[in-house]
Amino acid sequence: MSTDQDSTPSLDPILSPRSIAVVGASRRPGSIGNTVLRHLVQAGFTGPVYPVNPKATSVASIPAFPSVASLPMVPDLAIIVVPSELVLSTARDCAAKGVRGLVVISAGFREVGGTGTKLEADLLEIIRAHGMRMVGPNCMGVLNSSDSVSMNGTFSPVLPPHGDIAFASQSGAMGMTILDYASEYGIGISQFVSLGNKADVSGNDLISHWRDDPEVKVILLYLESFGAPRRFTRLARETTRAGKPILAVKAGRTAAGARAATSHTGALAQIDIATDALFRQCGVQRADTIEQLFDAAVAFSRAPLPLGNRVAILTNAGGPGILIADACEGHGLEVRTLSVPTQDALRAILAEEASVANPVDMIASATPEQIEQALRIVLEDPGVDAVIASYVPLALEAPLVARAFEEGARGSDKPVLAVLMSKRGLPQGMAELEGSRIPAYRFPESAARALGAMWRQRQWMTRPAGDWRSFEVDREAAGRILDGARAAGRQHLDLPDALRLLEAYGIPTAAWAVVHSAPEAVAAAEALGGRVAMKPASGDILHKSDTGSVHLDLAGEEAVGGAFQELEAQLEGTSAGALAAGVLVQEMVGGGRETIIGMVWQPYFGPILMFGLGGLHVEILEDVSFRIQPVTAQDSAEMIDSLRGVRILGGVRGEPPVARERIEEAIQRISQLVGDHPDIVELDINPFLAFPEAARCCAVDARFRIRT
Amino acid sequence: MSTDQDSTPSLDPILSPRSIAVVGASRRPGSIGNTVLRHLVQAGFTGPVYPVNPKATSVASIPAFPSVASLPMVPDLAIIVVPSELVLSTARDCAAKGVRGLVVISAGFREVGGTGTKLEADLLEIIRAHGMRMVGPNCMGVLNSSDSVSMNGTFSPVLPPHGDIAFASQSGAMGMTILDYASEYGIGISQFVSLGNKADVSGNDLISHWRDDPEVKVILLYLESFGAPRRFTRLARETTRAGKPILAVKAGRTAAGARAATSHTGALAQIDIATDALFRQCGVQRADTIEQLFDAAVAFSRAPLPLGNRVAILTNAGGPGILIADACEGHGLEVRTLSVPTQDALRAILAEEASVANPVDMIASATPEQIEQALRIVLEDPGVDAVIASYVPLALEAPLVARAFEEGARGSDKPVLAVLMSKRGLPQGMAELEGSRIPAYRFPESAARALGAMWRQRQWMTRPAGDWRSFEVDREAAGRILDGARAAGRQHLDLPDALRLLEAYGIPTAAWAVVHSAPEAVAAAEALGGRVAMKPASGDILHKSDTGSVHLDLAGEEAVGGAFQELEAQLEGTSAGALAAGVLVQEMVGGGRETIIGMVWQPYFGPILMFGLGGLHVEILEDVSFRIQPVTAQDSAEMIDSLRGVRILGGVRGEPPVARERIEEAIQRISQLVGDHPDIVELDINPFLAFPEAARCCAVDARFRIRT
Repeated sequence: MSTDQDSTPSLDPILSPRSIAVVGASRRPGSIGNTVLRHLVQAGFTGPVYPVNPKATSVASIPAFPSVASLPMVPDLAIIVVPSELVLSTARDCAAKGVRGLVVISAGFREVGGTGTKLEADLLEIIRAHGMRMVGPNCMGVLNSSDSVSMNGTFSPVLPPHGDIAFASQSGAMGMTILDYASEYGIGISQFVSLGNKADVSGNDLISHWRDDPEVKVILLYLESFGAPRRFTRLARETTRAGKPILAVKAGRTAAGARAATSHTGALAQIDIATDALFRQCGVQRADTIEQLFDAAVAFSRAPLPLGNRVAILTNAGGPGILIADACEGHGLEVRTLSVPTQDALRAILAEEASVANPVDMIASATPEQIEQALRIVLEDPGVDAVIASYVPLALEAPLVARAFEEGARGSDKPVLAVLMSKRGLPQGMAELEGSRIPAYRFPESAARALGAMWRQRQWMTRPAGDWRSFEVDREAAGRILDGARAAGRQHLDLPDALRLLEAYGIPTAAWAVVHSAPEAVAAAEALGGRVAMKPASGDILHKSDTGSVHLDLAGEEAVGGAFQELEAQLEGTSAGALAAGVLVQEMVGGGRETIIGMVWQPYFGPILMFGLGGLHVEILEDVSFRIQPVTAQDSAEMIDSLRGVRILGGVRGEPPVARERIEEAIQRISQLVGDHPDIVELDINPFLAFPEAARCCAVDARFRIRT
Repeated sequence: MSTDQDSTPSLDPILSPRSIAVVGASRRPGSIGNTVLRHLVQAGFTGPVYPVNPKATSVASIPAFPSVASLPMVPDLAIIVVPSELVLSTARDCAAKGVRGLVVISAGFREVGGTGTKLEADLLEIIRAHGMRMVGPNCMGVLNSSDSVSMNGTFSPVLPPHGDIAFASQSGAMGMTILDYASEYGIGISQFVSLGNKADVSGNDLISHWRDDPEVKVILLYLESFGAPRRFTRLARETTRAGKPILAVKAGRTAAGARAATSHTGALAQIDIATDALFRQCGVQRADTIEQLFDAAVAFSRAPLPLGNRVAILTNAGGPGILIADACEGHGLEVRTLSVPTQDALRAILAEEASVANPVDMIASATPEQIEQALRIVLEDPGVDAVIASYVPLALEAPLVARAFEEGARGSDKPVLAVLMSKRGLPQGMAELEGSRIPAYRFPESAARALGAMWRQRQWMTRPAGDWRSFEVDREAAGRILDGARAAGRQHLDLPDALRLLEAYGIPTAAWAVVHSAPEAVAAAEALGGRVAMKPASGDILHKSDTGSVHLDLAGEEAVGGAFQELEAQLEGTSAGALAAGVLVQEMVGGGRETIIGMVWQPYFGPILMFGLGGLHVEILEDVSFRIQPVTAQDSAEMIDSLRGVRILGGVRGEPPVARERIEEAIQRISQLVGDHPDIVELDINPFLAFPEAARCCAVDARFRIRT
């Protein structure tokens, strides 16, 4: 249990009110205030509803009151639909009366900019000052279908059936549309909130509330932006790990204005990538479309999670069986041949022409008894974790088939998903299954996708928790380096500072020294083992010139001295600071497999970590992975595993595998570094060289950009 | 016009009969024969229907005849539903009577194996001997909704609306299901054929027929296998290039039994990859699901193709606009900011709060007049190629919106796709648009996907035709090499033969010589420029040992002589033939970018060509592309362009681009080689080294497996 809600007042007055005032309830049919009032009454809200209207004695036959102050009791919730210029005074009246929850439908706030933004800030101040909670402004209302509440405080004329799916929508219009779909498909909704401008109540607040609500089994989100991604991550992770799935449509891929990238990592890390990373890290499943959202939601709502990914397919015709098998493979599910005893048992009850391997084709003549028995037999196979049972209406009516599915599945704790492939009798067939644990679909793809989502949820729940490791580091030394650079007005750390920063956080670097003359360079090269690389120490220079100023694989007095003079001449042509910073002489580390560890600070998400294989893998193939900081041990392992080219680290063509635990540790140490020092806005360790010998792994080059 | 149909009798008696006999028309309601007869009558078949039943004087009130011979006239088509053992005699009776077309619904043929297979062969012999055509056996009938035919000769009780979509299904059950969907969604079907066992009439025959049928505008296929992929490719290419789209669901990805791979190329080239390649080469668009098939079919059926990919989005709420924009990007479409004049024109007619950049958000208060005008304005923008117009039902009823879309689109030759996002009024809204050129969808994703399919069709039609080049080659020399190897009982060509084979087809190779002693090796090395590679010449040895037996970068008497002796000792331990074949000394070609050109012969598709970047790109990243032989110049260019790592050939980090026209030519020459010599079942040129200088590009190693 989190203590998240202790700090702020409860959402109960908004989501489960016992009484409601509609402030701005107009007598004009079709007006928003009138509509919301009527919807509350039509849906049979369990408590009293008070219209507030200064000019009417009744609205929709319900006695009205001229003001909030004049109400005969204190309503839990006030739904406000007055013009925006009257919202502030109404909110004050509510506060004075002791109302605890507001739903502000009125528009004309932050979404119109200018004075609207000010108005919203003032409104929020009133809310906060009086310990109230508020949904909106500029929203389309709230809904709770629980028998004890039965509240439809929305524009939507239809109340979907009562169920255990909770849904928050950042777009009011999409919310209405989605409620409409839910009613049509008989998808049971528990609560719905149109978030509007999210001035007070946010998606995070709702996750926090629904996490602990036993009436909610699945949480759906329609999002267009994140307010507080870190809190989202924490809340969502707790919720999903505890077994309550969260499914989200995150719109706005194209609208994402990726800021002009000044570096490598920056160019790759965009908002949508960050969203994907964030969802992955907290077990939220992203749906591309509303349809996919529902397909999965229904499955989660009705059926138990599978323990594994082995699917048995039942069908009465070859085609659908193949389509379902194809779709299963595409969603991480396996369609294996059934065990010999299972095949024998099926053969004993099915027609001679039936196929029993998997898909099980019961052929067109299958009877309800055969369907029921076949389903029971495959469910009993210990090598089967889930069943997709399909029927093309050839001989039997859909409701008969649905009943056979229900009977066959009775008593099993494995999920069964039905595919009823025709309109004919479909509504009746669906209706037949509505109270059951069997979600029903029309298209094979939908069932496979939904089962795939269930399997991912199961994997997520059983995945190791992945602790955030805290390494012993020299945080103060790092702080001093950064303070020094900022004091010197540097945007890019000089290379020695960059390497020292890594060292302060326990990330090994190739041995190095800074020199200011040719003899010093020669001496340093000798001390570093003879073969060295040389480059300018100044961060600004390094940032500007990718090529030309780095000299590799130098050995001997002549080569080293010559390189120094060349670099010196180059630097003389630039700023004085660049020359003064000197030249870095570094041990030439031979071999090793190149990797890149990077970070870019993104305005919404904070630090985003990147890992990739070096060279062409990043530049050309964009084979990289991302996670939001902080990353767990498990995250860092998955960052490596998710690369297409991961086998290169495992060793190809007889090479030994590299010590990948060192890469994982380096990623986690970087996570700690950028978490401790939020002024680092970009970093690139390129390359971080990985070797089979753990002790040889090291960073060779590092670039840091800091906030100035 | 192709002459494809000249060789075989026409399908008209089957698809557009003027009279039909139902042989095996039972009086028993619910029996197949009775059902098909009733469906024919219910759908109002325009000619006479004759039940043939030896035991009844009438069936379903229609006068019956005891035998085909006793019919009062010669029906164009006989639909046969008698038990399988009577089908042969019935077919003979039909032939004797002069019937030209058969649809054999009866099952019990090849699909049951054994005697069924024999029965089917005998049936086909009768058909062919008498110049008849036959659909089936083991099918679910045929349908033609044209007013002049109006034939429902299927199990399906519903006749979808008349339209211009033709549909062939290899699965009867899927066919029925799809007809059901089509009726529900008001999708106009022209003709439908359940192919059954495809003993005579195949999918290819239907493509050939429908290609020339002016009543057919779109062709849909549900396939589970290919009969004659080469004919399919040719027919489909002609049809799609001429502007008649073909959309296909190809089921059976997982069922594909990829044969045990004996080599590199073999492991990668699987059936599904081949199907994708084949579709790509002939402009057939593959749908993953039935839903996608229909989404695209409706768009093709109703709307004109876009000339470009720039989409304007109209909406009355922010959320849907974002979802549509996201989906467009995912389907190759662009959502650009509208021109300033267009924005000004929109601003003049829309509410102040509307957004006019793109998506155009007309906001919730939009009137039908505003919707109509806004649509007209965006259609007139020369920077807009297509419009997706969406509406969330907030204020207006769907039919009103639909009419506004229709009015706004009137007179424009750009496609407009509607998204009506709610059930409320949706059927009426859809109905309103049914006769129009505006396809309507419920989900944003569906419209974007359909428009994406239209844009791909447009690109395909305007793509250069891509000729099959015929190079001057020494075909006979190649034949002699292959004959020699076969005569010697070799499964793998010796390396000298392999290189000579490439040379015979004009593919340059690194200079080489075969030697049988150390002094010979030294002399050859000198003649080849000093630096050489050495390996066994025997194909069998090469095939078995990937490592250890290839010596690279040798120079000087000692190294070359030593390598020879080492190889000789190795070969002595193997077969006598391997030693006799000698050792290959080859010019050591330095540098160059490694590519692989391969081919594997696939039982269904024949030769499949592969191209990839060498080394890790193929082995680890599986960055390869495939095409079915023969490949055009355009195909070979696309094989290269479709690689993720294509930029490596263009030159990275300042390298000059390679002479890629030489790679393209080599791919086309290989295509010619394997087409001329079908006994080659596998080949791998690995590497084919590409250089900036065209003259330096060459094959270094080549392995051929031949049919024995």
